[in-house]
Amino acid sequence: MTHPLFEKHRATLDGALQAIATRGYWSPYNEMPSPKVYGETAAADGKAAFEAHLGKPFELNQPGQTGWGGRERSPYGVALDVRYPVCDPDALVAAGQAAMKGWQAVGAAGRTGICLEILDRLYRQSFEMGHAVMMTTGQGWMMAFQAGAAHALDRGLEAVAYAWREQSFVPAVTVWEKPQGKNPALVMKKHYEIVGRGVGLVIGCGTFPTWNTYPGLFAALATGNAVIAKPHSNAILPAALTVRTIRAVLAENGIDPNLVTLCVAEQRSATQALATHPGVKSVDFTGSNVFGQWLLANCKQAQVYAELAGVNNIVIESTNAYKAMLGNLAFTLSLYSGQMCTTTQAIIVPAGGIETDEGHKSFDEVCADLAAAVQKFLGKPEVACAVLGAIQSSATAERVELANSGALGRVVLASQKLANPEFPGADVRTPVLLAVDATDEAAYMEERFGPISFVVKVADAQAAIALSERIVNTHGALTVGLYSTKPEVIDAMTEASWRGKVALSINLTGGVFVNQSAAFSDYHGTGGNPAANASYCDSAFVANRFRVVQRRFHV
Amino acid sequence: MTHPLFEKHRATLDGALQAIATRGYWSPYNEMPSPKVYGETAAADGKAAFEAHLGKPFELNQPGQTGWGGRERSPYGVALDVRYPVCDPDALVAAGQAAMKGWQAVGAAGRTGICLEILDRLYRQSFEMGHAVMMTTGQGWMMAFQAGAAHALDRGLEAVAYAWREQSFVPAVTVWEKPQGKNPALVMKKHYEIVGRGVGLVIGCGTFPTWNTYPGLFAALATGNAVIAKPHSNAILPAALTVRTIRAVLAENGIDPNLVTLCVAEQRSATQALATHPGVKSVDFTGSNVFGQWLLANCKQAQVYAELAGVNNIVIESTNAYKAMLGNLAFTLSLYSGQMCTTTQAIIVPAGGIETDEGHKSFDEVCADLAAAVQKFLGKPEVACAVLGAIQSSATAERVELANSGALGRVVLASQKLANPEFPGADVRTPVLLAVDATDEAAYMEERFGPISFVVKVADAQAAIALSERIVNTHGALTVGLYSTKPEVIDAMTEASWRGKVALSINLTGGVFVNQSAAFSDYHGTGGNPAANASYCDSAFVANRFRVVQRRFHV
Repeated sequence: MTHPLFEKHRATLDGALQAIATRGYWSPYNEMPSPKVYGETAAADGKAAFEAHLGKPFELNQPGQTGWGGRERSPYGVALDVRYPVCDPDALVAAGQAAMKGWQAVGAAGRTGICLEILDRLYRQSFEMGHAVMMTTGQGWMMAFQAGAAHALDRGLEAVAYAWREQSFVPAVTVWEKPQGKNPALVMKKHYEIVGRGVGLVIGCGTFPTWNTYPGLFAALATGNAVIAKPHSNAILPAALTVRTIRAVLAENGIDPNLVTLCVAEQRSATQALATHPGVKSVDFTGSNVFGQWLLANCKQAQVYAELAGVNNIVIESTNAYKAMLGNLAFTLSLYSGQMCTTTQAIIVPAGGIETDEGHKSFDEVCADLAAAVQKFLGKPEVACAVLGAIQSSATAERVELANSGALGRVVLASQKLANPEFPGADVRTPVLLAVDATDEAAYMEERFGPISFVVKVADAQAAIALSERIVNTHGALTVGLYSTKPEVIDAMTEASWRGKVALSINLTGGVFVNQSAAFSDYHGTGGNPAANASYCDSAFVANRFRVVQRRFHV
Repeated sequence: MTHPLFEKHRATLDGALQAIATRGYWSPYNEMPSPKVYGETAAADGKAAFEAHLGKPFELNQPGQTGWGGRERSPYGVALDVRYPVCDPDALVAAGQAAMKGWQAVGAAGRTGICLEILDRLYRQSFEMGHAVMMTTGQGWMMAFQAGAAHALDRGLEAVAYAWREQSFVPAVTVWEKPQGKNPALVMKKHYEIVGRGVGLVIGCGTFPTWNTYPGLFAALATGNAVIAKPHSNAILPAALTVRTIRAVLAENGIDPNLVTLCVAEQRSATQALATHPGVKSVDFTGSNVFGQWLLANCKQAQVYAELAGVNNIVIESTNAYKAMLGNLAFTLSLYSGQMCTTTQAIIVPAGGIETDEGHKSFDEVCADLAAAVQKFLGKPEVACAVLGAIQSSATAERVELANSGALGRVVLASQKLANPEFPGADVRTPVLLAVDATDEAAYMEERFGPISFVVKVADAQAAIALSERIVNTHGALTVGLYSTKPEVIDAMTEASWRGKVALSINLTGGVFVNQSAAFSDYHGTGGNPAANASYCDSAFVANRFRVVQRRFHV
């Protein structure tokens, strides 16, 4: 059984299937906001489309609407004033459940084709989405365009490809014929129906409202489930745009659009009630440890896929490219003011310093040189504003102030406030860098989200690797890094990363950064340490979202 | 990377991969205890091998041994008196963890090849295993030989095939090359390492000590984990034989045999402590709701794959083969005295009776005719003893007494004790059949494990299907059945089975029974209703047992 949209997008699907099998570079979505790619008027059209939402109610025609809500505050200080439908959660669950019958009936190929069409339609909204992501999250424009659109679509497509691969393994029907010696064989016909588990709830975060939402959303949807998207209260517009487009494509294809709805809930208790609703069978969550652990402990009726906090770290043992290393780290610490779940927090350096291509560097020299590299990289205000973006939440700003005060360690580089000429209301802050001893665990061994990093002094390289492993095992990490010229050190760190189950980047000195994770090639999170119980993307991320129900009879 | 044993068993693996993809009949293990297949002396040799264990300590050379334990009581009344090593659970976990490094290093192909070799070696022990299963579980000989050996090996092989398929999708290495316009491409080499989650604990049941243990055991093992097998206290020998063979094959192939160990624990508290050990990362469990729910609630550190109790049911709406239907049901209710997790407990029949090829049959006639069919089928004592086996536990015998007393419903057919001439100590009981009204939910709507079934009177066919669905949704079921000649009834029941997520058998009147589940073709449990949160076997059963850890660097 196929579907017109499955055939229409077959090449994209085949490309994605090939990409997840070989894990080389691939993407059907262009990350450059170029008129040659998107069309001469795309940039202006997209900006106008974004601006047209401001100050207005965002209609979705969802069931059970009780009013309007949402009060996003732009980190850039821009007035948004978009209002979103507030709907009775029970009505959303019931409507999603009712819509699942038709979604099941269209089959895996139909679901895959429709998901691919949705992704294609979202792709055409990339500029509109880029502005929505930028203005709600505080990301710089280029990052918002890339991570908010193309890279998020990559992750969504990746999930659809995994979901298709797993579903395609299940034959619709078979004839089972068991020989009985001299007697006639036993012959049965068996049908296998793929059924979704139920309603999937996808809870977004405030910093990456599409990139961290699309994997769970498309994994649940492609495998036959209804989806309720519950965005972070400060980043609703990207989710609302997504849900509107999905609902339009569903309706065009004869599927009840209430299969996918937006839930705007301002009270945590409302989200908790929804997450524990008997009809909700999966929860995808990106966010804090506190709420994530609550979900894991309380959502007994659902599969929970959670990406939580961690303490990402890098071990610097030696390098043969000191300047390039410092430049790479300066970018990593600065990008989006460190407000990425993959940004390095702890940089572990031996007390005796490190050997480099520029000679021996003491611990203090490494600290000072890294501080200087960050300062140099952010020396031009226009570069600084473009890279740093704005601080997304006041809690992050408060953490920066705390770090600046010296309460958490010796300030090697203080965070500075910068003015953004284009957005006078933006809260722009440069990274703060602190030097601490390995024993100062209270300072560096919990996630301090934002542009706050620690250079941690350890006895030697062996202690550095051991500390990195212990951090990963006890607090989790999405990324670790290593700088070393010694094969035995690289081997030891590699083995530590296997035990801790964390992705390792080695000697990054060029245009790839430890906090970047490329769909189809890089697994985002391993699902094997406390920072995340699932990975973008692998078979486990999709295979338990559907079940196979068989029926058999003699023929 | 390949392995000699992977190449040796390549044809078997390919056959299994083909079978799980097409789901037709297939098995490399012969279920007939025939000298032509197994060799002229196999039966006698196997029996002698079994008997050689009796009255002796069963040496395994495991770490942390503190003494000897195990006091299996044969349902056949035969003295067993085998003693097993009792080992410190912490020592078993630590030894398993230590052994995982070498198991990881041998790679997916190596692990798969070694698992295939283990299965082949266990296959050669089929007669020995058949006697061990028969004498510990009370199964009849033919069932013990088939379900205890060949069919269990099928399920183990199936898990190995799924595990290999999923692991084989992960490339060991890739080169990621991202174009950068006019600038040189970004080029990275990335390695992907498959690592097991940790120690897998596999908790067996007293009735199917291999069939219900091999899926989890081989799924965990093949995906890179250590395994501790914790058998039911009354069915240790089949697990001990399995563990000894596994350890021998591991050692022959340079793998630390402590990768797989046997844990004999007589106190539930010891099993609880082991199941919540921080080093235990997966628990496979078959057994009671009480302990299963305890595991699900308390094993926060582990993935729990649980097969629990359910209330299997059949709707009889009409039939065009009345006698054959009754004969099929009589066998289903009698086989192993109903001590299968798949045996039908509730037979739902409209109050107005049913249309058949022998004319209309009233509700009471259906009850009486089914009772007569069971009596007829068990009329010959030698057939009865062979089919019924013996009652595995005194709790089951007590439940039969309770049902016989009439306390649970009108007794349509009373259970009788039979004498087994070969085993005078065997507790042999025929099925008890009760008639109840649909409102008597306290009687039939909880699992009453053993040869106890209810004919439940409902208003009509629609009510029958609704009741079946409600039973599945609230109490779970591994199997439901339907007898009907009407397509609209079959369609309605099919849709109910999708909503309830339960396997449906339609109009079984021949040599296939609702309580039989064939590996490679029938999914055992859907994992979507309260009777089980996982299925034998699908991708979800294996994909989350390993994680992929990547490392990347510029080239």
